[in-house]
Amino acid sequence: MSPWGGEPEAMADEVILLDSWPSMFGMRCRIALAEKGIEYEYKGEDLRNKSDLLLRMNRVHKKIPVLVHNGTPICESLIILQYIDETWSDGWSLLPSDPKQRAQARFWADYVDKKFYDLERKVWTIEGKEEVAKEELIESLKLLEGELGDKPFFGGKRLGFVDVAAIPFYTWLYAYEKFGNFSIEAECPKLIAWTKRCLNKESVSKSVPDPQKVYEFTLHVKKALSS
Amino acid sequence: MSPWGGEPEAMADEVILLDSWPSMFGMRCRIALAEKGIEYEYKGEDLRNKSDLLLRMNRVHKKIPVLVHNGTPICESLIILQYIDETWSDGWSLLPSDPKQRAQARFWADYVDKKFYDLERKVWTIEGKEEVAKEELIESLKLLEGELGDKPFFGGKRLGFVDVAAIPFYTWLYAYEKFGNFSIEAECPKLIAWTKRCLNKESVSKSVPDPQKVYEFTLHVKKALSS
Repeated sequence: MSPWGGEPEAMADEVILLDSWPSMFGMRCRIALAEKGIEYEYKGEDLRNKSDLLLRMNRVHKKIPVLVHNGTPICESLIILQYIDETWSDGWSLLPSDPKQRAQARFWADYVDKKFYDLERKVWTIEGKEEVAKEELIESLKLLEGELGDKPFFGGKRLGFVDVAAIPFYTWLYAYEKFGNFSIEAECPKLIAWTKRCLNKESVSKSVPDPQKVYEFTLHVKKALSS
Repeated sequence: MSPWGGEPEAMADEVILLDSWPSMFGMRCRIALAEKGIEYEYKGEDLRNKSDLLLRMNRVHKKIPVLVHNGTPICESLIILQYIDETWSDGWSLLPSDPKQRAQARFWADYVDKKFYDLERKVWTIEGKEEVAKEELIESLKLLEGELGDKPFFGGKRLGFVDVAAIPFYTWLYAYEKFGNFSIEAECPKLIAWTKRCLNKESVSKSVPDPQKVYEFTLHVKKALSS
């Protein structure tokens, strides 16, 4: 109670996202926050010179993204997505309510984590391994495309957990295509049609960088790795 | 409705676990099913000659464990644990109800997956890398011990998500100690005291193999790897 007898003002939520713009894992959080309409403060990190706040908020892995909600850090992107879903639970849900469908959504989001990140790095960073990595990447994308089937989104009629987990990888595909000299659209047309549907949503298009900018970033990294 | 006008009998749940006895990931499922009091059929797999059922039920990764519930496969051990928690939700819960505590539990279970499996394999399979892996393993165990603090269990007063995720690794520690010639109890006494508290629970002790048997298994694998 305030001294004037009125109700105390509800404490406004303080939401901070520690992130780095090319991070596919950070993009997931940005999209989910945008879809849920949550206001937050964005703090871009220089990963070669991490802030004290990041080192304090993720003392185990020292990695972005970290969502800091009223002072409590939440780490690991898929855990952050579930936290966002459970904390701001009015309206649209990332995860369906049926346990079997929830397990299936978690499985495919985990699949994206297990398969793509490593494979994609191989495509553009390991000399002489590009061909094998390329084939594995295409095979993995085709499996994911099979799961999409004829649905507009993995989540059905609108964005769900798997969509938010997987769409950031689109921003890196252009770079892989340039390095690997292949067309993902030719291999996985339905998956590319799905990326376009996702990008028609403002929550996605405003949360992810231009693939050309990502490509230029990878050129810088590749140069630094080889010097 | 039956032809006699009565209510149809509720269909009994058919629960099958495809597993392999030394699997730390399989043990997690066994413990959770035991704690929840769920009856199930155990099917041990020969991983060098996988059954048609396993290949059909986990066509993506082709790995155990798989929980098959009324014909629907659920894969990946931490996803299985959450499925069990959400499907048989009366009584004891693996995950707490508060979103921040849920995120924290998921973080530490994920930590166990990210840190231990790879490090432990290095301790006993990569010649010449044992010392580095041993130091990293001890450091990782100490971080986990710090999270336990003075609580009896990671879940508080009783077993929770992190306890079920982490305790199977205990069955392999004896083998690592033998190969690495070190004592985990000397390094992490609180963590070892926690393993003993877990093993006092029948749901755990009846679900995990004798560490001596695991050690003998690793000797066989090591021999096969070096031949």
